[in-house]
Amino acid sequence: MSKLLVFGHQNPDTDAIASSYGWAYLEREAFGRDAENVALGTPNEETAFALDYFGVVAPRVVESAKAEDVRQVILTDHNEFQQSISDIKEVEVVAVIDHHRVANFETANPLYMRLEPVGSASSIVYRAFKENGLTPPKEVAGMLLSGLISDTLLLKSPTTHASDPHVAVELAELAGVNIEEYGLALLKAGTNLASKTADELIDIDAKTFELNGQAVRVAQVNTVDIAEVLERQAEIEAAIKQASAANGYSDFVLMITDIVNSNSEILALGQNMDKVEAAFNFTLENNHAFLAGAVSRKKQVVPPLTESFGG
Amino acid sequence: MSKLLVFGHQNPDTDAIASSYGWAYLEREAFGRDAENVALGTPNEETAFALDYFGVVAPRVVESAKAEDVRQVILTDHNEFQQSISDIKEVEVVAVIDHHRVANFETANPLYMRLEPVGSASSIVYRAFKENGLTPPKEVAGMLLSGLISDTLLLKSPTTHASDPHVAVELAELAGVNIEEYGLALLKAGTNLASKTADELIDIDAKTFELNGQAVRVAQVNTVDIAEVLERQAEIEAAIKQASAANGYSDFVLMITDIVNSNSEILALGQNMDKVEAAFNFTLENNHAFLAGAVSRKKQVVPPLTESFGG
Repeated sequence: MSKLLVFGHQNPDTDAIASSYGWAYLEREAFGRDAENVALGTPNEETAFALDYFGVVAPRVVESAKAEDVRQVILTDHNEFQQSISDIKEVEVVAVIDHHRVANFETANPLYMRLEPVGSASSIVYRAFKENGLTPPKEVAGMLLSGLISDTLLLKSPTTHASDPHVAVELAELAGVNIEEYGLALLKAGTNLASKTADELIDIDAKTFELNGQAVRVAQVNTVDIAEVLERQAEIEAAIKQASAANGYSDFVLMITDIVNSNSEILALGQNMDKVEAAFNFTLENNHAFLAGAVSRKKQVVPPLTESFGG
Repeated sequence: MSKLLVFGHQNPDTDAIASSYGWAYLEREAFGRDAENVALGTPNEETAFALDYFGVVAPRVVESAKAEDVRQVILTDHNEFQQSISDIKEVEVVAVIDHHRVANFETANPLYMRLEPVGSASSIVYRAFKENGLTPPKEVAGMLLSGLISDTLLLKSPTTHASDPHVAVELAELAGVNIEEYGLALLKAGTNLASKTADELIDIDAKTFELNGQAVRVAQVNTVDIAEVLERQAEIEAAIKQASAANGYSDFVLMITDIVNSNSEILALGQNMDKVEAAFNFTLENNHAFLAGAVSRKKQVVPPLTESFGG
């Protein structure tokens, strides 16, 4: 078998980087395959904190599988083609390790696909280590723990699965860190928005969803102070309008998530604001509205949008 | 959690019936869920042989999940919606256990999805039994073995995975049968085509594939004498034309598979015969052509058709 590339989604978050890093390690050590972990973008500041903490070199950024002379790829933490490598339709997807809904994904051949409705793709990767009788080394355990903490906001998000806290305890022990202390430091590293331009801010963690023919961009930023982010509303809206025009997004939904109190302010602009308001049963005032208790794009934002847009 | 229905694809073959029967048992015994195994069609003669041999009652046939007042379903041995229950888009798919390519499948929410490129969905179900520390009782092991034998034509098809022979040995021991003896009896039970009308014959094991906007029907019958089936070519062609007109198939590809010598004759009718000929690099004469060594629809017929039709 020729070389395999293993990568998470575009605009990688910590779970995308960690799960692909861990799975590539498993492919090499457990299955003896020539697997290289790469990334579809530069790690964000939160991920950079984790990589630095555990002494892991950031994965090489690639833009095309064909340019790498690779014909087979493994996706972690995503399955939707528009979130994947640019030429995904021209290569063979031989495996998917993910914890998201399935959409806009198809293959010509049978494959290994392992999806579980758990808090992070990293949780699944850790389970696969155990099933194959392997213990992840300290830096792998540390990255997987970081992926889980990041995606579940320190196990507080409703996406947290009943099995995740125990996974976190085992990984923290292998990584030699205290979950709460390390976790809060990790999350806070991702909230430094002051250093970001508005263009960068709306792209830190953003994914496009095809909803009934509309390209809906749903972005999320973490903060410890929602008001501070809203002070930059004018420039953020300008950036959103420009990005939507340039990329053909019908709508742009930005979640400004308070990681301490577990709430989000939704800032939304686009052609289907009636559907966005119906999805969350709120009224946008000056283009934004408060969504109490919402911290999960996947579980609390995308499903109501999908239903409201009509599939 | 409310009641779950577990079922295989329409026009169920032995693996569809066996894998759903086994997985429903596992849901009840290992996960404590209220899961009922049902079917999307009456078992064929091969499956009826297995059910009778192991004293298993044929699953109840259902046509709609909503009519059963069920909101959540589990699919085995398929994922493509057009092969599933009629109102699949109106219910939640909470799990998929399958060994086919992925296409025309999507969900609004994360789910449990376990696909492996192995010989049968029954192989995966057996692995899940072991992972959960359960031993399938004799009749469950017997049905799972039957699913594996049926889908791999007694482990001879190229779809047979390196892990499948060992799975077969373990299941045969639990079921108390000799693999070769039982397997040949099982396969032969499915080759009694004389009792079938042409309409029935083309529907014994048939699936529709969406290939670049075309609805391509690919059916397969097993026989010990290809010539005997071709003697009925005129009435089979009439049945194919009627079925295509009634259901909007652009093309109908019938594999007449010799289970003893592991070859197939392809009988094909429709609007894209140029693409069918290009797919297999053969020339249809009087609407049919020989395909040496071809026994697997999934591995040897659908992928070249998919490529030839252009995705």
